[in-house]
Amino acid sequence: MSVDFEDVRAAASRIEGIVAHTPVLTSLALDSLAGRRLFFKCENLQHVGAFKFRGASNAIALLGEEAERGICTHSSGNHAQAVALAAKQRGVSAYIVMPENAPRVKIEGVRSHGAEITFCEPTLEARERTAAAVMERTGATFVHPFDNPKVVAGQGTAALELINEIGPLDAIIAPIGGGGLMSGTCVTTRALLPEARIFGAEPAGADDAARSLAAGHLIPNKGTNTICDGLLTSLCELTFGILKENLESIITVSDEDVVTAMKLLQEHLDIVVEPSGATVLAAVLTEEFRALKDIDSVGLVISGGNLDPEMLPK
Amino acid sequence: MSVDFEDVRAAASRIEGIVAHTPVLTSLALDSLAGRRLFFKCENLQHVGAFKFRGASNAIALLGEEAERGICTHSSGNHAQAVALAAKQRGVSAYIVMPENAPRVKIEGVRSHGAEITFCEPTLEARERTAAAVMERTGATFVHPFDNPKVVAGQGTAALELINEIGPLDAIIAPIGGGGLMSGTCVTTRALLPEARIFGAEPAGADDAARSLAAGHLIPNKGTNTICDGLLTSLCELTFGILKENLESIITVSDEDVVTAMKLLQEHLDIVVEPSGATVLAAVLTEEFRALKDIDSVGLVISGGNLDPEMLPK
Repeated sequence: MSVDFEDVRAAASRIEGIVAHTPVLTSLALDSLAGRRLFFKCENLQHVGAFKFRGASNAIALLGEEAERGICTHSSGNHAQAVALAAKQRGVSAYIVMPENAPRVKIEGVRSHGAEITFCEPTLEARERTAAAVMERTGATFVHPFDNPKVVAGQGTAALELINEIGPLDAIIAPIGGGGLMSGTCVTTRALLPEARIFGAEPAGADDAARSLAAGHLIPNKGTNTICDGLLTSLCELTFGILKENLESIITVSDEDVVTAMKLLQEHLDIVVEPSGATVLAAVLTEEFRALKDIDSVGLVISGGNLDPEMLPK
Repeated sequence: MSVDFEDVRAAASRIEGIVAHTPVLTSLALDSLAGRRLFFKCENLQHVGAFKFRGASNAIALLGEEAERGICTHSSGNHAQAVALAAKQRGVSAYIVMPENAPRVKIEGVRSHGAEITFCEPTLEARERTAAAVMERTGATFVHPFDNPKVVAGQGTAALELINEIGPLDAIIAPIGGGGLMSGTCVTTRALLPEARIFGAEPAGADDAARSLAAGHLIPNKGTNTICDGLLTSLCELTFGILKENLESIITVSDEDVVTAMKLLQEHLDIVVEPSGATVLAAVLTEEFRALKDIDSVGLVISGGNLDPEMLPK
């Protein structure tokens, strides 16, 4: 039930030409702020504006005939758009359960790919109950946003492209929500760069991963309080197991740090990054991270850019 | 004194590995708004945040020993940053004359590359006079932002990458300021896609190219009134000659259209584009352009992204 690097490599071949090979951007100004060389893997420039399209494409490509009855998921946004587009590309229906407070831009994205949306209350329980009802009605197959090895393997292809392009890195960092991107990043990095140090970035207002790793067992978020709307979910056993074995540490960042990082990314890389995606730069600029020795080069996985335009930092 | 495609091809080899190979982005939502397939060549993701680095790198690489006394230019911003970085990479000094009202982000960019800045009044006459005094003092060589065949050849490498990556396009469009990017785009496109239709985008508040082409001779801007701060300069004989022979027409856009286009690029492509760079999308969305027949695919050269953060459209 775990994920190994061969799964990532197979996913990369399977989704080649379907997912975008996203650029790696650099900025001397940001290097100078961080005190190191930074390499930004820009998944905000991925189709649907987020890495989620990698995992969804891989998982949906691997389904058999059952895909004909459609695909169902619940998501506040980027995974929803990813499933909607991947289902459309396979020529099957997508049924998406979204919390009624999901960002407008993400709702519109899902709609634009022709998926059927069912809104529910913004709780995990309501999402799961509503998705179950949709599947009962349609016979659709559920594709979980992160508790699925095929999804995790797909997410690992972002770090694969980054490392193939840039070569050795002393460290790599990705954001942690449910842990799918972080887990895929761990699997790839550990295989290709056994010596590299692996970090996670997590908002203080949804820090279940930091608390779970410290305790040695899963401690889900009870409530969340952060602008990082893509990182509100808690780890599952699959992702917790992978993170526990591979992460050196988790850097916790404040929403204020995240807004500063969003502005820096806009100014110096000319990219729009959603709060969740900016956590990695925020983390690298903390005193905690800057104090780490022997890290000259860092790969940062920018997870997505689907920001409601009215939320752009001023 | 003109530019041919062999110059562009030689420039591409010369600056390979120095300039970034920028991504070509697409969006189904923007395709649907335009009624055609759009391919955005994202020079906002170029080093220094603009295509200008291509031309400056080519021209400075082609200088002989005289480069040792430094490089001088005058520019409101992107060309200034480009010369500053290209000079630094060649290991020589850069002396940049900038109008005192240049965007803060562009002034900081020039400073960050170690160039010496001399401010002047925001008129062409003051810029030229100040640059002459700087060259008198230093012995530096002047690299003009567009009235230089080596600069034009460098700018043509953006369209070269676009066409090499995407293949045939029915049309291509670039912004017009002094005409360097547009001229390079014409030379490349005419050579590689002889049947393609070539358009320019120009703001109504600095429309010397449209007026000059209509009159058949150069009519420089007397005053300008537009947020497109990269497009305020007027054509020169070199660029006018190339545009006259190759452009089907110039699409004139309002500042309001430009702001709408900036927002669309932020929302759908997750990129920050400066007003000048957004003119091409604004043009493609006009009724005038939408009414054109037999254009299924369009390449759009997004010139740059160096936007003062406080100028982000809300």
